[in-house]
Amino acid sequence: MSKPIGIFDSGVGGLTVLKALRGKLPHSDFVYVGDTARVPYGRKPKEMVRGFANEIACFLQTLDVSAIVVACNTASACALPDLAERMPIPVWGVIDPGVEAARRVTRTGHVGVIGTKGTIASGVYQSKLNALGLTVWAQACPLFVHLVEEGLSDSSEAEVLTRHYLSAMPQIDTLILGCTHYPVLAPVIQRVVGSAVALVSSAEVTADVVSRALADSPGGIGRVTHYVTGGVPAYQHTAEVIGGVDGRVIPLDVARLADAGVIAG
Amino acid sequence: MSKPIGIFDSGVGGLTVLKALRGKLPHSDFVYVGDTARVPYGRKPKEMVRGFANEIACFLQTLDVSAIVVACNTASACALPDLAERMPIPVWGVIDPGVEAARRVTRTGHVGVIGTKGTIASGVYQSKLNALGLTVWAQACPLFVHLVEEGLSDSSEAEVLTRHYLSAMPQIDTLILGCTHYPVLAPVIQRVVGSAVALVSSAEVTADVVSRALADSPGGIGRVTHYVTGGVPAYQHTAEVIGGVDGRVIPLDVARLADAGVIAG
Repeated sequence: MSKPIGIFDSGVGGLTVLKALRGKLPHSDFVYVGDTARVPYGRKPKEMVRGFANEIACFLQTLDVSAIVVACNTASACALPDLAERMPIPVWGVIDPGVEAARRVTRTGHVGVIGTKGTIASGVYQSKLNALGLTVWAQACPLFVHLVEEGLSDSSEAEVLTRHYLSAMPQIDTLILGCTHYPVLAPVIQRVVGSAVALVSSAEVTADVVSRALADSPGGIGRVTHYVTGGVPAYQHTAEVIGGVDGRVIPLDVARLADAGVIAG
Repeated sequence: MSKPIGIFDSGVGGLTVLKALRGKLPHSDFVYVGDTARVPYGRKPKEMVRGFANEIACFLQTLDVSAIVVACNTASACALPDLAERMPIPVWGVIDPGVEAARRVTRTGHVGVIGTKGTIASGVYQSKLNALGLTVWAQACPLFVHLVEEGLSDSSEAEVLTRHYLSAMPQIDTLILGCTHYPVLAPVIQRVVGSAVALVSSAEVTADVVSRALADSPGGIGRVTHYVTGGVPAYQHTAEVIGGVDGRVIPLDVARLADAGVIAG
């Protein structure tokens, strides 16, 4: 019997990872949890985000998933590697694949990373990249998630904010998009940084790593089920900015999530 | 027996109205509903927002409130006056008080209004102000709510975005802050528009109108109860940007809200 692959994010951003994974594993089944009642994670305390990630991972376990993809950089930064050590199934985050890809791509050894406040403040990208001998420039872009979710990824606001956030960017040749929402902003970011800087999407490279690891698992029927903690129509509406939702969407009570965390945690 | 006054908003923004009202009616009890599982309302379809407002108003009725304040400009623009006509208790929105205040304040008859996409696209401020013979400039500022909720109301991003949104502002002498989040941004907005432009906060003037109407109602003990559709700790954390939460916070399932809307609607 094939088991579904579990993926979760604070909201719709992880759908970029799901989309990339479905492209590579078209016969696998997926369960996606969007914690839309508590989005965004980026500015919340690390302990709070770690608790959310634990609850969702425990809930996914009750659905008998084969593996879990933490498709959220903030949650990956806060909850890994602890979460992976406590779970009896494989758990991937989105940070290590992005770091590895940046190492392969850079020629000059000068790389940049952008993400939410939580991700950048955690310092996890910086320390992992530094450990590989790379020089790192890091910048929090707290409004980028909202640009995407407001449907403003190709707007004058996107241009103004991108120029603002990247105004102090030094000479780099590789920029990690350290948030699963950011691939949607890639065209405007590429325009601002110029074609000499390679963009590394943590969503895309995570899908590469996970699909290679699971390539020999038994396939399913390509079904996706979404669980969302906020309202269902609101989720479907916001998800349009990432290409829409394909599959059933089931409401998930945050209280039930908290119970899952307590029972299994 | 005194009954509580019901107030609702899509999230924490309405807390600016609650705060202003408590200052004027310190002995009244309040029930505040924050629909944090479905925030923001600003970009959602009008019919969807109208449905949310109906559900919450019906839920507040089940708590036996004496009156309802729709402390959200988007919901006021979408759901009023229909909602007020169908409810057996007084219902106030935040738009008429703002329009009235702008009429009193302006000397030149040239006023501006800023708000979410939903509020500005509804055209309700524009038509009400035009009906009073005023010339109106209107501008949607979809990222302002997120600036506030991300704790960035006094940041370089706030300055950059305010200059961007107000770059085409003609000569006006009065600017309506047509979103209950915006009073938090008043210092930066005032700095950008200059001291010759008077800011009218829809939160503050709504509290004036409601408190005058309810001044003779029997008082309570100054208690506030909050119901939130998203996570409780996340609500308390975000509410810090508006001055924090004082009172019990009770989780409210969006499915229960939908039931309230169906039963009473």
